[in-house]
Amino acid sequence: MNRLLADLRIVEFSAFVAAPLGGMTMAQFGAEVIRIDPLGGAIDFARWPVTQDGISLYWAGLNKAKRSVALALDKPEGRELAQAIAAAPGPGAGIVLTNLPPLPGLDYASLQAKRADLILLRLIGNRDGSAAVDYTVNAASGFPLVTGPGGGAPVNHVLPAWDIAAGLYLATALLAAERHRARTSSGQEVVAALADVMLAMVGHLGYVGDVHINGRARPAIGNDLYGSFGRDFATADARRIMIIALTPRQWRALGRATGLADKLAMVGTMMEVDLETEAGRYEARDAIAAPLARWCAGKTLAEIGTAFAGSGVLWGPFQDFVELVRDDPRCSAANPLFSEVAQPGIGRYPMPGLPFEFSAAPREPTRPAPRLGEHTDAVLSEILGLADGEIARLHDSGVIAGPDGR
Amino acid sequence: MNRLLADLRIVEFSAFVAAPLGGMTMAQFGAEVIRIDPLGGAIDFARWPVTQDGISLYWAGLNKAKRSVALALDKPEGRELAQAIAAAPGPGAGIVLTNLPPLPGLDYASLQAKRADLILLRLIGNRDGSAAVDYTVNAASGFPLVTGPGGGAPVNHVLPAWDIAAGLYLATALLAAERHRARTSSGQEVVAALADVMLAMVGHLGYVGDVHINGRARPAIGNDLYGSFGRDFATADARRIMIIALTPRQWRALGRATGLADKLAMVGTMMEVDLETEAGRYEARDAIAAPLARWCAGKTLAEIGTAFAGSGVLWGPFQDFVELVRDDPRCSAANPLFSEVAQPGIGRYPMPGLPFEFSAAPREPTRPAPRLGEHTDAVLSEILGLADGEIARLHDSGVIAGPDGR
Repeated sequence: MNRLLADLRIVEFSAFVAAPLGGMTMAQFGAEVIRIDPLGGAIDFARWPVTQDGISLYWAGLNKAKRSVALALDKPEGRELAQAIAAAPGPGAGIVLTNLPPLPGLDYASLQAKRADLILLRLIGNRDGSAAVDYTVNAASGFPLVTGPGGGAPVNHVLPAWDIAAGLYLATALLAAERHRARTSSGQEVVAALADVMLAMVGHLGYVGDVHINGRARPAIGNDLYGSFGRDFATADARRIMIIALTPRQWRALGRATGLADKLAMVGTMMEVDLETEAGRYEARDAIAAPLARWCAGKTLAEIGTAFAGSGVLWGPFQDFVELVRDDPRCSAANPLFSEVAQPGIGRYPMPGLPFEFSAAPREPTRPAPRLGEHTDAVLSEILGLADGEIARLHDSGVIAGPDGR
Repeated sequence: MNRLLADLRIVEFSAFVAAPLGGMTMAQFGAEVIRIDPLGGAIDFARWPVTQDGISLYWAGLNKAKRSVALALDKPEGRELAQAIAAAPGPGAGIVLTNLPPLPGLDYASLQAKRADLILLRLIGNRDGSAAVDYTVNAASGFPLVTGPGGGAPVNHVLPAWDIAAGLYLATALLAAERHRARTSSGQEVVAALADVMLAMVGHLGYVGDVHINGRARPAIGNDLYGSFGRDFATADARRIMIIALTPRQWRALGRATGLADKLAMVGTMMEVDLETEAGRYEARDAIAAPLARWCAGKTLAEIGTAFAGSGVLWGPFQDFVELVRDDPRCSAANPLFSEVAQPGIGRYPMPGLPFEFSAAPREPTRPAPRLGEHTDAVLSEILGLADGEIARLHDSGVIAGPDGR
């Protein structure tokens, strides 16, 4: 968290990962981000992982530092309030972020009629308006069929990588559009398709060109690096590690640190490749891996750590989520990235802020996610200027709800 | 491509994915992005995939629309030129992006001494300065041990997801820092660690909280969705598809479109769960999948496409990179995301621009990556004001190189 964008206000209608992550990124930069949800929460409100009481750790994770407003979006009066909040005046306000189908009155034309310079950022599935989510976009991307051992069995990523890319792209697009508005007074509608985020990345990484130019695509090669040397190895104590030699320097360090330099040099002669090149190491990867595998299998993870310390070898152990959280000091409040936060309804645990240090914007503690509806009354009062009596009437008539759900 | 950021100039010292992607995102927004490389190219200049001639499709993909300057960065005179370009005056200039160790004169203190309001964005591996790359950060993340079938064998993602997240975070951070400078005249140094990008995302998705609060982590469940219903199925013609039911509406659509609604309803009774909830569908996922698997196995992909068309079922076929590029119209110049581009040294193929439509900034054709050193002379002339004779002397003394490598 910092205060770099503290003069911005973003109103978010969202669910799941992408738009919530984009909005939360802004909130962690200090922007006022108001997530407006239907009464009872949106479709992601109970998404797993959850606590034993069914409270979503996922929702808490993706909505930190936001304000929460709960409105009856199925009623005209609820939608009118949402529209009024979204289109409220103020130089840093009038920015709307969504990955949901627009409700009546919350489309760009309606919002722009209320505020001419409004910026609306919309993430959709496919460009033609059809549905797509991370799982379907990933299936289409080509990656699952080269992940894991291959053989025609697709392996899906577990990290929602396309949603993450889309969320961070949205944050960039938001700042680009806001910069344009600050210079020209013009708002705009910005539309991104999740499928296009995937397609752009497949192209950026060279895979579209590979098929067009070479008529082929990279194969599935398990955990091997494509086009260089890198592979996972088992240790004597049943751990796994990645060892990588992308650069000549890393390659030479690996030979030195393992004492296998002479044997590895024989691989070059045996396989008739230049091991100083990435392509040479890739072609000879099985021959390189054989002595390394024996070396790793004879040592514990701790012994390997000692052997590689300060050596210039590029490597790292695999760890599961429990090992990451319990044993890796980077994943604790010892890392300034994390703050111990008391999350309402859940408890205290370390929550990450922005993965940046800005020298001109001191890091502030991570703030928790709101309770659903926690800021309904405050937002209606501060932004719409509603009197207490009117707010009470809206509660009584079921148009708005506070953190008690009513 | 558009022109939203056409008044910015970013100078990039980079390699591989993250910083090049961050810079390219700016270039596709119209910024002048000058990538400065050592003579002969940086360590990513021949990264795979490559053409039959060894020209990198990857490098071309990640450096589109940039200007390329080749300098002898191993010589003081080359570094002085790099520093002068990086710290050159101009309201939109003085922004430096890097994921390489700083060379003498190119650290923040040296650059700031030349231009007080300079912004330097640096991506490092670990916060303590030790090396980390996507492969090692991923190994530490917990994800490889829940990707694929599990059983302790890690499965690495092939998509460099952490590099992609870092690159897009850098783009966001760049615009946040530039916005701050435009308002305060203050530059700054911004440092991000790739490991922190990973840790932030593991936390945002709820996995850190899961271990702290629940004392456990999600298991490996192959291609199943965690906490809801989704799985891959084989078709009669040996294709694979993902079918997903995140929402009650998608769940009911699936029953209707397959004609299995009555049988699926029995699953709820048999398994004693409420199939209208995500948790219920997750618990009963094997029982749900059994009749669906038989249904899919009896139909070709085309027949399934017909059955699901307009049904509201959330699904999609798996396709490999060749199928994506050859058969999916979204991955072609029929999609405005792509332009047919003539890439020097490679040939013509569709290259993606930004995955956004900005209503106030018309899309322009995607521009190719430069040849290495293509803009050396122009940049030295335009930005540093060097005379032709001085530029010729620098060529002759091996301090700079043009696209012919000299």
